[in-house]
Amino acid sequence: MSELDKVLAHIDGDFEKALERLFAVLRLRSISTDPAYAAECKRNAEWHAEDLRGIGFEADARPTAGHPIVVGHHRKGSGPSALFYGHYDVQPVDPLELWEDDPFDPKIKTLADGTKVIAARGSADDKGQLMAFVEACRAWKAVTGSLPIPVTILLEGEEESGGANLPGFLDANAKELKADIGLICDTNMWDPQTPAIVTMLRGLCGEEITIHAADRDLHSGFYGMAAANPNRILAKILADLYDDQGRITLPGFYDGVPELPESLKKQWDTLGFTVEGFLGPIGLSVPAGEKGRSALEQTWSRPTCEINGMGGGYQGEGFKTVIPAKASAKISFRLVFDQDPHAIRKAFREHVKARVPADCRVEFKEHGAGRAIRFPDTDPAFAKARQALSDEWGKPAVFIGGGGSIPVTHQLKTALGMDVILAGFGLDDDRIHSPNEKYNLESFRKGIRSWARILEALSR
Amino acid sequence: MSELDKVLAHIDGDFEKALERLFAVLRLRSISTDPAYAAECKRNAEWHAEDLRGIGFEADARPTAGHPIVVGHHRKGSGPSALFYGHYDVQPVDPLELWEDDPFDPKIKTLADGTKVIAARGSADDKGQLMAFVEACRAWKAVTGSLPIPVTILLEGEEESGGANLPGFLDANAKELKADIGLICDTNMWDPQTPAIVTMLRGLCGEEITIHAADRDLHSGFYGMAAANPNRILAKILADLYDDQGRITLPGFYDGVPELPESLKKQWDTLGFTVEGFLGPIGLSVPAGEKGRSALEQTWSRPTCEINGMGGGYQGEGFKTVIPAKASAKISFRLVFDQDPHAIRKAFREHVKARVPADCRVEFKEHGAGRAIRFPDTDPAFAKARQALSDEWGKPAVFIGGGGSIPVTHQLKTALGMDVILAGFGLDDDRIHSPNEKYNLESFRKGIRSWARILEALSR
Repeated sequence: MSELDKVLAHIDGDFEKALERLFAVLRLRSISTDPAYAAECKRNAEWHAEDLRGIGFEADARPTAGHPIVVGHHRKGSGPSALFYGHYDVQPVDPLELWEDDPFDPKIKTLADGTKVIAARGSADDKGQLMAFVEACRAWKAVTGSLPIPVTILLEGEEESGGANLPGFLDANAKELKADIGLICDTNMWDPQTPAIVTMLRGLCGEEITIHAADRDLHSGFYGMAAANPNRILAKILADLYDDQGRITLPGFYDGVPELPESLKKQWDTLGFTVEGFLGPIGLSVPAGEKGRSALEQTWSRPTCEINGMGGGYQGEGFKTVIPAKASAKISFRLVFDQDPHAIRKAFREHVKARVPADCRVEFKEHGAGRAIRFPDTDPAFAKARQALSDEWGKPAVFIGGGGSIPVTHQLKTALGMDVILAGFGLDDDRIHSPNEKYNLESFRKGIRSWARILEALSR
Repeated sequence: MSELDKVLAHIDGDFEKALERLFAVLRLRSISTDPAYAAECKRNAEWHAEDLRGIGFEADARPTAGHPIVVGHHRKGSGPSALFYGHYDVQPVDPLELWEDDPFDPKIKTLADGTKVIAARGSADDKGQLMAFVEACRAWKAVTGSLPIPVTILLEGEEESGGANLPGFLDANAKELKADIGLICDTNMWDPQTPAIVTMLRGLCGEEITIHAADRDLHSGFYGMAAANPNRILAKILADLYDDQGRITLPGFYDGVPELPESLKKQWDTLGFTVEGFLGPIGLSVPAGEKGRSALEQTWSRPTCEINGMGGGYQGEGFKTVIPAKASAKISFRLVFDQDPHAIRKAFREHVKARVPADCRVEFKEHGAGRAIRFPDTDPAFAKARQALSDEWGKPAVFIGGGGSIPVTHQLKTALGMDVILAGFGLDDDRIHSPNEKYNLESFRKGIRSWARILEALSR
C-alpha cells in the first residue's frame, strides 16, 4: 500500500470528524461586507490559525486595516513549494426569509434525487472548499508526519467585500509568501462527474453610485416633473449602459477583448454545453447578453455589466407618491483578456456624470478592481494536477474558463510572479451568494482526496 | 357684535383646547397603506365619530372592506347644504431616521424665522386641515346653538392608499350624502399671506410593476449577461417612459391635453411665480419636465409621470455580486383635462410588456385612478367663499391650479353631481409625505376662522 493510498484511506476513515470541523467553521457568521460581523470574522480567522497550529503549521491571524489574514507555514519537506489561498468570509444572507434553514446552522440534507449536501452559507463559497485542502494536509500529517511538499496557507477575510487589504499584504510579505505554484480551491467542476481546472478567469470592476437631487423627499403632486427625480435619472444611466444588441455602450469598453481563436471555440463545442442545460434549471431560456454570441461565450470569454442592486423612493407595501431625495445602484463589470478595470471605471463615471442634471450630484464608491488572467495550461504542474484529478474522479479533468472573479489570482501573478492552479469542487447548482447555499457531501469528501493526490503529484 | 364676530372671538378664546383636540388625533398612527396599522385607523375613525357627536352631529364610523368611513350629519338650519370631505389617514413615515421628532408625538416648534408650527405626521395632510373645519362648526354651535347651513361631514381613511372603497360608498349612499356644494380642506395657500381656492385639480393613475426573471437570486460571475437581469429590464422600461425632450412616450398619453388659453397663461404670469422661488428652497434649480414649458405649467397644467419607488437586488452595505430574481417599481401619472386614466394604464402596461423578454414575466398592481377636474369659478358660491377668505387674510384670495390629486373631488362631481370648493391652508414647505411634516400654527388658527366665515358666507 503506497503512502498515498494510506492517506486516502485515512481521509475516508476520518471523514465524520472532518465534517464536524467544517460545521464548526460554518457556524461562524463571517459576513465581511457588514461591519456588524467584524468580531465574528476575527473569531473565524483565529479558529483557522489555531486549527492549523494543531496540524503542525506555524500559523497566526494577522491584523489588517480590515479583517485579519491567516498565514500558516509548513516548510518541511522538499520539492516545489506551494501557496494555498482560500477565503473564510461569506456573502450576506438576505433575503433571509427565502432560506429553508438557518444559514449559520449547517445541516446534512438529502435532496429529492438522493444527493446528500451540506446546507449553510459558505458551505461551497469558500469554507467547504478551503477546508478540503486543510483536511488533505491534516491526513498527510497524520499518516506520514509531514507533507509531500512545503506548503504555506493564506486565508483572507475580505474576498466577498472588495479585498482592499490583500494586495498591500502580499506586497509587504512577498518574500515570506512567494512559492513555486499557487493553489486555490474556490471554483466549480465542469459537471458533477467531471473535475476541472480553471485556466482563464475574468476580472472585476465594482461601482456604487448615489444620485442626489432635492434636499428632501418631495410630494410628487406638488413637484412632479418640475423637480428632478433621482429614480428617473438612475434608470436612464443604467438603461443607457446597454445598446439594443446587448453590447455595453461605454466608450473603449471592448478594448483588449479579442475574438476567440477558432481552436478554442471548437474545444468548447465538444463540452456538450446547451442553453437549456445552463438556463433551464434556473427557470430561464433566452441568453440575455450580446446578440450573436453563445451563452457559453457570454459567460466565459465576453465581458459583462450587471446591475447587482438598485433602489430609490418608497419600496414598502402600498403606494406613496414621493419624489425621493436620492437613488442608488451597485454595478459590477466582469472583465476578460486585457481590459483595464481602471479605464473602465473612468469611462463608467463619465457615462454617469454626463447624465446627471446640473442641479443634482452623484456620489461614487469603488468596490474592487482586478484584471482578467490566463494560466499556461501547458506547464508540467498543471498536467500533474490534471492527472491527479482524473485519477480521483475516474474521468479526465478539463481545462475551462471561469465566470467568477478571484482577484487574488491576478495579484499572486503580479505581486509574487506565481501561476495558480484553480481546482475546485463546487457545482453550478450550489447557489453560492443566494439563499440555500449548499456543497455536495461528495464534493467535500472527494475534494479532500483530490488535494491529497495533487500534493503528492506535485512532489514528483 | 355680529354673530360671526362672536364666533371668531370664541375661536380665538378656545384655541388652546382646539390644539389639544388636534394633538389627540395626531397621536393616532393611521397609516392606511400598511395593514399593521388597521386597528389604529379604526380607532382614529371612532375618535372622530365620538367628537362629532359631542358637537351635536348624528355621527358614526361605518365599516367598509378597508378602513371605516365616518359620516356625521347636522341637518338643522336653512340655506344651501354642504358636504365637507376630509381624510383621517396619513402617509407612511419612513425613512424614520430623518425625522427630528417622533412623527406621532405632536409638538409646537418654533422655526429659525420665528414661525410656530405643529410638527407631526398628518399635521398638514390632512388632520390639521380637516380639524380646522370641525373646529369652525364647534364654534358656531357653541355660540349660536346651530350652524349657518346644514352640514354633512364625511371622513375617509384610505385617501393615501388608493381610496378603493370610497366610490362604492358614495354610490351606495348618494341620496344621504348629496348636498348643494362640496367643501374640502386639503390644499395649500398660494403663499403664507395669500389664501387660495383650487379650481383645477389633476387626476391620478398609479401602477406597481414587478419583473420576475430567474427563479432564484444568481451569482453574476456565473450567470452574468447570459441570464436576464430584472434590474436591467426595469431600468429600460422606466427610462423609455421619457424622451429626450422630457415628454412621456406612451402612445396617446397627451390625448385630451389642450394648450392653455393665453388668457390663463397671462393670469398666471401675474402670480409672481419664479423657478428660484419654487425649486430653490428644496435645493434644486433646473425644471426637469417638458422642455419649453415653464415650471408652473409643468406643475399645474401638464400631465406628469414619476417613479415614486424602485428596487431590486442587493441594497445593503457593501457589495454583493448578485443577479436578483425580481425587481419592482411604483409609478404614478398625474393627469390633466380629459386624459383617461384607464387608457393610460393600458398604454403603460403595453409599454412594459413590450420590454419584458420571453423568459421573464411581469406582475401588475393597480394603485388608484381618477380623472382631472375643473370647477366653475364663476359660480356665486365660489365668489362668496373667495370673499370670506379675503376678509380673513386681508388679501384677495386667488383661484389656482393644484398639483396634487384629490380623487374624491371627481367622484363627488360624477357620483353626486356636486361642485367642490377646495380651500386649504397648507404651505409649500409643509413637507407632507416627507419626514418632519408640519402645519403652521397660523394656518390652523386662521383656517378655523376662515371656515367659520365661509359657512356664514354660504348662508347668505
